[in-house]
Amino acid sequence: MLYLARMDVHLPQDMPVVQANEIKAREKEYSQELQRQGKWQQLHRVVGQYANYSIFDVDSHDELHEILSGLPLFPYMSIEVTALARHPSSIR
Amino acid sequence: MLYLARMDVHLPQDMPVVQANEIKAREKEYSQELQRQGKWQQLHRVVGQYANYSIFDVDSHDELHEILSGLPLFPYMSIEVTALARHPSSIR
Amino acid sequence: MLYLARMDVHLPQDMPVVQANEIKAREKEYSQELQRQGKWQQLHRVVGQYANYSIFDVDSHDELHEILSGLPLFPYMSIEVTALARHPSSIR
Amino acid sequence: MLYLARMDVHLPQDMPVVQANEIKAREKEYSQELQRQGKWQQLHRVVGQYANYSIFDVDSHDELHEILSGLPLFPYMSIEVTALARHPSSIR
Amino acid sequence: MLYLARMDVHLPQDMPVVQANEIKAREKEYSQELQRQGKWQQLHRVVGQYANYSIFDVDSHDELHEILSGLPLFPYMSIEVTALARHPSSIR
Amino acid sequence: MLYLARMDVHLPQDMPVVQANEIKAREKEYSQELQRQGKWQQLHRVVGQYANYSIFDVDSHDELHEILSGLPLFPYMSIEVTALARHPSSIR
Amino acid sequence: MLYLARMDVHLPQDMPVVQANEIKAREKEYSQELQRQGKWQQLHRVVGQYANYSIFDVDSHDELHEILSGLPLFPYMSIEVTALARHPSSIR
Amino acid sequence: MLYLARMDVHLPQDMPVVQANEIKAREKEYSQELQRQGKWQQLHRVVGQYANYSIFDVDSHDELHEILSGLPLFPYMSIEVTALARHPSSIR
Amino acid sequence: MLYLARMDVHLPQDMPVVQANEIKAREKEYSQELQRQGKWQQLHRVVGQYANYSIFDVDSHDELHEILSGLPLFPYMSIEVTALARHPSSIR
Amino acid sequence: MLYLARMDVHLPQDMPVVQANEIKAREKEYSQELQRQGKWQQLHRVVGQYANYSIFDVDSHDELHEILSGLPLFPYMSIEVTALARHPSSIR
Repeated sequence: MLYLARMDVHLPQDMPVVQANEIKAREKEYSQELQRQGKWQQLHRVVGQYANYSIFDVDSHDELHEILSGLPLFPYMSIEVTALARHPSSIR
Repeated sequence: MLYLARMDVHLPQDMPVVQANEIKAREKEYSQELQRQGKWQQLHRVVGQYANYSIFDVDSHDELHEILSGLPLFPYMSIEVTALARHPSSIR
Repeated sequence: MLYLARMDVHLPQDMPVVQANEIKAREKEYSQELQRQGKWQQLHRVVGQYANYSIFDVDSHDELHEILSGLPLFPYMSIEVTALARHPSSIR
Repeated sequence: MLYLARMDVHLPQDMPVVQANEIKAREKEYSQELQRQGKWQQLHRVVGQYANYSIFDVDSHDELHEILSGLPLFPYMSIEVTALARHPSSIR
Repeated sequence: MLYLARMDVHLPQDMPVVQANEIKAREKEYSQELQRQGKWQQLHRVVGQYANYSIFDVDSHDELHEILSGLPLFPYMSIEVTALARHPSSIR
Repeated sequence: MLYLARMDVHLPQDMPVVQANEIKAREKEYSQELQRQGKWQQLHRVVGQYANYSIFDVDSHDELHEILSGLPLFPYMSIEVTALARHPSSIR
Repeated sequence: MLYLARMDVHLPQDMPVVQANEIKAREKEYSQELQRQGKWQQLHRVVGQYANYSIFDVDSHDELHEILSGLPLFPYMSIEVTALARHPSSIR
Repeated sequence: MLYLARMDVHLPQDMPVVQANEIKAREKEYSQELQRQGKWQQLHRVVGQYANYSIFDVDSHDELHEILSGLPLFPYMSIEVTALARHPSSIR
Repeated sequence: MLYLARMDVHLPQDMPVVQANEIKAREKEYSQELQRQGKWQQLHRVVGQYANYSIFDVDSHDELHEILSGLPLFPYMSIEVTALARHPSSIR
Repeated sequence: MLYLARMDVHLPQDMPVVQANEIKAREKEYSQELQRQGKWQQLHRVVGQYANYSIFDVDSHDELHEILSGLPLFPYMSIEVTALARHPSSIR
């Protein structure tokens, strides 16, 4: 099942650069592993913002929440999730 | 270049069913032709709403506006467009 | 899987009473059949509004969208859907 | 009487982990005791968010406010409460 | 139990004056009967708007919804209800 | 003249408990004195929130602003004021 | 006492021009009479909108509501009223 | 002086095509005359919407309001105007 | 030319009282000088809020921005500016 | 391709003046270099706010995101980007 997620990141402005970089490195690794598994199907940057739109393909709400709440940046994010159904005009 | 578009459809409640069906049939044909061309890459229904999230891959703002304003349902839609850039963590 | 749905109904003020009553009767029958099947688990009126909060238990996004878009009142409703995951403190 | 409550949690980002865990443990115990009493009928996680939707069944506004304001996480929450009436189409 | 309700009235601009006056007369009678019963405790006009803030004292959510949905102007109103609890600093 | 005021309190999360309690005690005393004078006619807790709806009966805008800006909790509050006129259906 | 009012006008698009002009003429006369009385102290057009910001100086909420609800354009307006107090830095 | 204006057009869906085209033709002529005069400096389509962002260079608020309220499409538009000052980093 | 400005002040809650008072004193002096010059024509307190509505009469956008950005409280304010044109019904 | 960007700056109130000035100096230099290259076509101050509206002319979404995320003030900004297409009435 597909879900659209919009994630906005708000790092504390007093977070040391070293700590921020370490979190971002773990986030990247975590994200890329899920992309390779096919669960995180798409990941796009919103132009001009520290934010992304992503499409996930997972088996259940619980699986998606586990993935999202496990993001290294999760404590610094606000996330909006939209459930996507098949569109009758889609050729896929 | 990629764009995310959210389209919400509001058909007038007094539109005759025959007219509505004719517009929807043209919309479907129009959409599927663009999907086959690779310009309308994704088309998903928002669960519970007469709305969709779509991803377009076109060469310019002008091309996207020409596509969207040519939709048979365009006069009955509100559309929000978001420009998408490459995300540094994307594996694509 | 569970979903929370909020539905707000806006019947056209010039709809004949007979037509409105016929739609509402079909809506009631449709809703109660789904309740008996266990798919529409809860249905509550929002105090002071022609609106409800409902909880659905279905197998997929597609199944929920099929149910919601088949509501006799669907053309007159705005619906917001929220995907619900298991809460770690729930005793159920 | 039934109430829907949506609770969003915003822990300060500089709260020590030990303190946060202690509050969450008390929150869980408090919540589960109320669930066992039948007052906190449902507790669901909003996918992708540190938030929940809950349904309470209590005797009065005062009782609900006492319960909510006694939550260990109450100082870190924003809560929206909606009064729910019986829906004429509900089979319960 | 006390509830605050804000009601905004939007009569269709093409409603005949005779019909509007008849509805308003029934609304007034209906409201005053409930005021005399002590259920509709306060009724105030919002300055500059066809709207009111009211305080109700009723026994249950269901009773309040029955009162509000029975208002002759109900089909033309949007209503927001807030549950009110006892305030610890109130001297009443 | 009557005014409806909604007050939301946001105490800094790092305010020492002793200081918070001292401010709240002064707030209570201040509020109850105005209630006894008949100026602060009603004071209700919003269920689930550190907020209240109040009705004031004072002689002028200036008097109300003096009262509100003198609240011990004023620096930690956001307040919305609505001017209330006599409602033609009120029996009072 | 002073009040700021913002008024937005939404005439029905199918109102005959003759009727619209007649209402506007009465509105102008009504407004200018109140301006001459000193009750409607200021009247400014919002650039680019069929809207105004006005300042009224009247004796009570009831007087202001009587003035506003008597506007010939009142049925076609949305109005927001803000109570204004004396500012301690004002030299007036 | 410069102003940014965002204009959203909402033509009635039952306006005859001939009438709509006649209004749009006059709008185009009106707009292009002002562009040639240098008063309407920029005119851009918002992608996916029947809306534009424009920059005007006029001598006063009154002149801008006269221009905007004279637009043939003005009765069908909502317009938001923002006053623009010189930016200290601008090289112009 | 006239402008309406709404200013909301948000002083940091940990600002020492001495510093706050010093800024406010400079703000008052600054404001009163501009009032005496006729540029800051009106200054009103919003009842119940640390906010004001003001009307300015200046020669250009640049002059207004210079005035507003020079306010001693400017770093702690959010300001919304609305350009005001002559109203055809105004008797001034 | 053209993009409209609105940028709002929120510097931490405890940032030392020296640091703020150093960032602003780099921001100015960065901005002016892009203006000289023709990529940052317009830069306007929003009157009364620490904000700007800008128009960019770049080759791709990626190029714009690279420019914006490289702004020395980027960590302290919220930015909204709107894609602009050619307007059929534009004479340019």
